[in-house]
Parts: sequence; structure tokens; C-alpha cells
Amino acid sequence: MNETTGASVISGPQPPEVVAQELEALLSSGNYDSVKVLLEPVQPVDIAEAIGLLPQILQALAFRLLTKNEAIEVYEYLDAGVQQSLLDRLRSNEVLELVEEMSPDDRVHLFDELPAKVVRRLLAELSPEERRVTAQLLGYEQETAGRLMTTEFIDLKEFHSASQALNIVRSKATETETIYSLYVTDAERHLTGILSLRDLVTANPEDCIGNVMTRDVVSVSTHTDQEEVARAIQRYDFLALPVVDKEKRLVGIVTVDDVIDVIEQEATRDLYAAGAVQAGDEDDYFQSNLFVVARRRVVWLAVLVIANSFTTQVIALNDGVLEQVVLLAAFIPLLIGTGGNVGAQSSTVVIRGLSTQRIQALGLFKAILRETIAGALLGLLMLVVVVPFAWWRGEGPLVAAAVGISLIAITTLAATAGAALPLLFDRMGLDPALMSAPFITTATDVAGVMIYLKTATWLLHNMGA
Amino acid sequence: MNETTGASVISGPQPPEVVAQELEALLSSGNYDSVKVLLEPVQPVDIAEAIGLLPQILQALAFRLLTKNEAIEVYEYLDAGVQQSLLDRLRSNEVLELVEEMSPDDRVHLFDELPAKVVRRLLAELSPEERRVTAQLLGYEQETAGRLMTTEFIDLKEFHSASQALNIVRSKATETETIYSLYVTDAERHLTGILSLRDLVTANPEDCIGNVMTRDVVSVSTHTDQEEVARAIQRYDFLALPVVDKEKRLVGIVTVDDVIDVIEQEATRDLYAAGAVQAGDEDDYFQSNLFVVARRRVVWLAVLVIANSFTTQVIALNDGVLEQVVLLAAFIPLLIGTGGNVGAQSSTVVIRGLSTQRIQALGLFKAILRETIAGALLGLLMLVVVVPFAWWRGEGPLVAAAVGISLIAITTLAATAGAALPLLFDRMGLDPALMSAPFITTATDVAGVMIYLKTATWLLHNMGA
Repeated sequence: MNETTGASVISGPQPPEVVAQELEALLSSGNYDSVKVLLEPVQPVDIAEAIGLLPQILQALAFRLLTKNEAIEVYEYLDAGVQQSLLDRLRSNEVLELVEEMSPDDRVHLFDELPAKVVRRLLAELSPEERRVTAQLLGYEQETAGRLMTTEFIDLKEFHSASQALNIVRSKATETETIYSLYVTDAERHLTGILSLRDLVTANPEDCIGNVMTRDVVSVSTHTDQEEVARAIQRYDFLALPVVDKEKRLVGIVTVDDVIDVIEQEATRDLYAAGAVQAGDEDDYFQSNLFVVARRRVVWLAVLVIANSFTTQVIALNDGVLEQVVLLAAFIPLLIGTGGNVGAQSSTVVIRGLSTQRIQALGLFKAILRETIAGALLGLLMLVVVVPFAWWRGEGPLVAAAVGISLIAITTLAATAGAALPLLFDRMGLDPALMSAPFITTATDVAGVMIYLKTATWLLHNMGA
Repeated sequence: MNETTGASVISGPQPPEVVAQELEALLSSGNYDSVKVLLEPVQPVDIAEAIGLLPQILQALAFRLLTKNEAIEVYEYLDAGVQQSLLDRLRSNEVLELVEEMSPDDRVHLFDELPAKVVRRLLAELSPEERRVTAQLLGYEQETAGRLMTTEFIDLKEFHSASQALNIVRSKATETETIYSLYVTDAERHLTGILSLRDLVTANPEDCIGNVMTRDVVSVSTHTDQEEVARAIQRYDFLALPVVDKEKRLVGIVTVDDVIDVIEQEATRDLYAAGAVQAGDEDDYFQSNLFVVARRRVVWLAVLVIANSFTTQVIALNDGVLEQVVLLAAFIPLLIGTGGNVGAQSSTVVIRGLSTQRIQALGLFKAILRETIAGALLGLLMLVVVVPFAWWRGEGPLVAAAVGISLIAITTLAATAGAALPLLFDRMGLDPALMSAPFITTATDVAGVMIYLKTATWLLHNMGA
């Protein structure tokens, strides 16, 4: 968590800010040879960040000093904004070469950010093979395996010998995304088996691939949700996962590095939902202007304000009891606050349990019942503190009784709703994270205030206070 | 998100529940050969889950039918509870063989869960080499690179030729965790370079490793926080990261599969903090009994109830104005609810930005100022809906004015606090997630109610209503 100690315990890379400063000084003084020396030991992602920190006029200059292979790798790590401004500043043959050489999945990622007109022009200028692959990937829906995968993989045939296969791997090693997971296909490109480079190097050179490979393949289809893909790679500790089309032909692979980003993105979404922030492309959150920020938040706030207005209605319609015992009002925030917190706890564990697929083992009804009992238990525990406080601050047994009775009812209800609503949403095929803390809290507010004021009214009549 | 569609688009593995059912039937009928046929195509993690679903008396029986290598891999995936019950049920020579053959990081993970007495006995029975390694790993603090790493890696020497190196890789391929990242050390075991198996297979067989390897190594130290390790692997798209001790000697490596679990664990912690649930070992959340669940939640709830009691105090001490205009009470939940939601939004984006290290680029002061302005802007936008509603429901301009003025003040304050408190905690070296939504919400409640009632009192005197 702490930046300062963090930097000191990862050794090797210079901070990109430092690289950017030195880079700017060298570029400004025209010392281009030293730039190459400076950047030689720096990791591509750090070079990309350093270039992003340069003044715009120096970015293209720095970029041109990279070797061709370095340039492609660095370009893939640049922020979307820098990528686009570089496209405007580089010569058109430089742009074309760059886009042609990018790996297909990164190219599609770039095209997603560019204006449609630019994409059409670039597509038209690509080589036929790269154009075909790119158009194919662009045809898959966002956030599916088809969009996440790369079409660069090594496929072998069952009749290859291990030593032949190793030669194929060697010849393709510089241009494919991974050489550690190898795929075996038949004449119709159907996936028939997989093996790892580890299997290959330990195999007898004369063994044929059909005997070395495993036929028990875990694969996903092009339209599998990216979160499912991520969970599968995580569960099985794979480095990559094959993607097949409807006819079970191998069309691409998803690699573990892309999957880590998906897992982080999904966690951010769940967290944003829990904080009533609309999920967007969180990459640029801290770069977007304030009106974008406000727009992303105001929708949820407005929905919650409207929901809150029902609470106002309930209090206004029951103001008779408040006029008689004005101190009752003092406990409204405490009661609905506690209800909200209990509901938030339940919805948090249930939503996270659904995301990490740990709750499934428990079953719907049992999961809800567990939370209901937990809510009642927590209400009971809270009574010990809250009732004496209410007796003192509320000046007598009436307020204390109203607060105590409604506390139990509210925590039980909040925990039940907090568990049931996300589970229900999940069953209906909706995103359970929409039923997160802010919504649960606001919903229990209305019910909580109703229970409290009705209880107080009833007590007032029957205790004769 | 949807289980049903999810299962259908990942092809290959049978659901563990199905495997468990078939397994139970075969075991009960003594049909052990068929068990082997059944389990042959099943992934180790799925076998582990299926065994976990069996009745306890059948677990050891199923486990014994696995081949030795399978057994070790499956054991590492079993839940802690099943691991322990198997230790009790297997013969002591079986236990010893199993524990001896486990990879050191998984063994340490197991020992963390076992009673100290059992650990001491098992340690004493290990071979001297495995005992030394295990004791060494147990000596590192929890959640550091030292605890996460494995000591099984391939180290080469600079004077090896590429073909010699490839032979070393081949000979160690079955026993090391990864053969894709290779490490080069000098006579004192200092890390001098790294190379990938890809570099090795594409190198000329006569090339010496010193010329093939890269000397620009990113490494972490044994006491680096596991989250830093995860961030580094994610940032650089590495498959593994070397871990060095104080003397810069290579002592282990952390692999990408362990890192994915760390990223997920940290995301769960942030989410739990946002939902006021104390983070524990979330693996067993849905297996722990209700009293454990209640204990994990009651502490935070109690803290929040005490914080909420200040809101009660503020209202009780200002009950004069409520006695005069009881409808003012009807807007308290709406105002503090909105303040809470705005504060939750700000703290959510800031806490997530700190976790994913995206906020650092912006700077402390600028980040807070951004949120303050966003809060004021959101308050202004909300006015359009809230003031007319307050005029109608509050029956006149007094309530509308009090609600409107305090709304702006509350949203501005909530956004500022929501951004500033987590950032402040981070600067102080504390976990910023502690300053998450529930805490921010409760803190702004007190201030919000105070602002609202003071404004109303002032207006009541000066508008003469």
C-alpha cells in the first residue's frame, strides 16, 4: 500500500517519472544515441508510461528512436490518448507498419478507441490476412472470449514427431504470443488435443504428438463471457485457454496476462457498484474531466434520492407521533443507519460470493436463511448498547421500547433483503452487483422508518405515555 | 455471471458435483478400476472438489486410488478441512510421503492451517533438505514474497551453452514449478540474469547463456508485500518474478497463478471493507458457522452504532426547532442518505485508485480538490429535484430553503471527506480501505444533521416563519 516502501523492495526498474525526465533532457539536447542507451534496460510498459509523461511534441520523436520490435510492444502499452496522438504525428507508412505488426487482439483494442473513419482507412490498408483476422475479431461482442483472444498460436498435427514439433515451435517463437501452450488440430482445424512446451521438451524426440498430447481439453467458445474465461484460467492454473467456434474449430487462445486485467476490471466494477458509481473504463477515471465524472455518478444519486423521498413521505405521513414525542426523531438516523450497515454486509458477502463462485455450493434458500438468522443475531447483540442509550437519551421506556423492537425487525429485514435481492437478480440473469449496498440501504430505510413509527404509534396508544 | 450459460460455454470438464456422484457410486460398489477410468480425464482441481463433496469415510479411499503425482497435485487443491481430515485417516507413511513431495510453498500453506504440534512432528520427519526449506519459508512473515514464493526453480550458469542449459531444463522439468522462466546465478548464488525458455529454444545451441540472458532483471525481496509482487507481475506481464534475500542471493520465485489469487484476495478485502465486513480468510466464509459470521461483523457494526449515536445527540440537542416545525424531521434521512451516497462514491474511486495505483499520477491535493468540486456540482444538480419536492412536502419555503442550503453543504463536505480521509490514511501508512463508505457515511451523518438543523434554526429566526 505504501508507495515509498513499495518502490524500494522491487528492484530493477527505474520509476517512469525519472526515465521521462532524463528522456526529455536528452531529446531536447538532440542526444539521440544516449536515448537508446537510456531505454535499453527499461521494460516496455515503463517506456510507454515515460513517453506518456513527455510533452506531446517530444512523444513521436522518442517513439521513433525505438527499434521496430520495441516500438510495437511499447505502443500496445500506451494510453489510448497517446496512441491516437501518435497516429496523427507519425508518417502514414510508419503508422501502417505499426498497425500491421501489432498482435491482432491489441489491434482490435486500439480500433475500439479510434473514430470509425480512421478504423475503416486503416483496415483497408492492412494486408489481406491481417484485415481478415481483425474484421473477424471485431465481429465478436465486447467482453467475450472472441474479443479477448489472440489468433496467434502454435498448432501442431498428431502425426508430427516431438522433434519436428520442436522445430515448428522454434520457427514460430518470435511471432506468437506464447509458445508454452501448444495446440493440436486435425485437417478441418478441429481441436483434438493440447500439450505444453514442458511436455514437448521432456518427450522422446521420436514420440509422435498424438501420443504426447492430452485429449482432455478445457476450452471456451468465442461468445463465452470474459469473466467465465478468467475464472476458468484461475481455477485450473492455466497459462492459456483455447477458444473454439460453433463448429469446434480452434480460432484463438486467451492468455493469462489478459485474464489478470479482466479479474481486476471485474473487481473494480463490483466495488464501483458497491459505491454507487457507474462503471466505465476505469483506466481513464482520473484523467476524465469533472463533467464526465459527475455524469457517471448523478444517475445513481438521482435514483437513490427518489427512493429516499419515499422515506420522507413515510415520516411526513406519520408526523402525528413525532409531534407528540419529538425525541423519536433523534433515533431515525441510528436505526436506518444500522439497518443499512447490516444490509450492506449481507449484500457484500453474497455479491462477492457470486463473483468468486463460492456461494453456489450453499444453495439459494440456505444462503438467504443464513443471512436472516445472522441479521436477527446482530440485532440482538446491538440491543445491549442501543436500548440503554435510547432509554437515557429518549427520556423513558416508550422511546427505548420503540427503538429496541424496531431495531431487531430492521436488522433481520435488512440482512434478508441484502442476501435475497442480489441472489434473485442473479437468478433472473441480471448483474447481482446492481443490488449492492446503496440500493439495499435505501430500500431498508423506507421499511425501517415505517416499522419504527408504526411501533411507536402503537406503543403510545397502548402504554398510555 | 449466469451459472447456467456459464457451464455450457466452457467445454471439457464435468461439474465436480457430477464427478462426486459417480465417484460415490463406484466407491460404494467397490468398483475401483472404474474410478481410475472416471478420474483420468478430470482436472486435479475438479478431483479435489469432488473428493471434498464425498462423505468423509470415502474421502481417504478415493484419495488412495490416485497415482502418486496426481495425489500430490490434488491434495494441494483440497480445502483445509479436507486436508486435515485426510492427514488423520491416511497411514503415517502415506502422510509423510505426501508432505515430503508437496511443493514447498503449498506445504507451508498447509502447515499454516495445522495445529503447531502436528507441524512439529511432520517437520521432524521430513528429509533434511525439505525441512530446511520449509523452516526457511515459515520464517518469513505472512503475505510477503517470502511466503508466496516456491524454492523450486531452475538456475543456470553464465558459462553453460544453450544446449547444456536445455538439457538441464529437461532433467528438472518434472520437479520444478515452472520451466518457462530460467534464472542465472554466480558462484555465490547472486542473481545475475534471467532468460525465458523461449529465448533458450531460439538461441544457437553453442551460444553461452551469459550472452543470451538479459541482465536487466526486475526482482523483489523476501519481505516485499504480496500485493506489490502481484502488481509487478501484472504490470510487466511476467509469468514469474525472482525473489532475492538481503544479500541479493536468489532464494525463490513467485509464479503468476499464485498472483491471481492474491489479486482476488485483495479485491475481496477492499469490497468487504466497503461493506463493513471484517476481512478474514474469505475462502471459508460460506462454510463458517453463524457465530463466526456474527463475530466478524459485530465489531464494525458496534463502532458504527456508537458513531451514529452522535447523530442522535445532535438531533436531541436541537429538538427545539423540530418541535416548532416537525416536518423538518422528514428530510433528515434524505439529506444524510444523499450525503452518504456522495461520500461513498468519492471514497470508492479514491480507494480503488490507490489499490490499482492509478491515482498516484494525480497528486494528493489535486485529487481531493477534484472530489470537492464534484461534490458541489452533484449537490447543485440534485437541487433541481429536491427543492421543489421539499417545498411541496415541507409545506413552504422554510423547509425548502433549509433542505436546499444544507444539501449543497453536505454533498460538498461528504465528497471532500470521502476523498481526503482514505488519502490521509494511505499517507500515514494505514490501509485506506478502512476509511470506506460505511465510515464516511456515518461521519457525514453527524455533520449533515448539524448543518441542517442549525440552518433551519437560523432561517426560522430570520424568516420569521
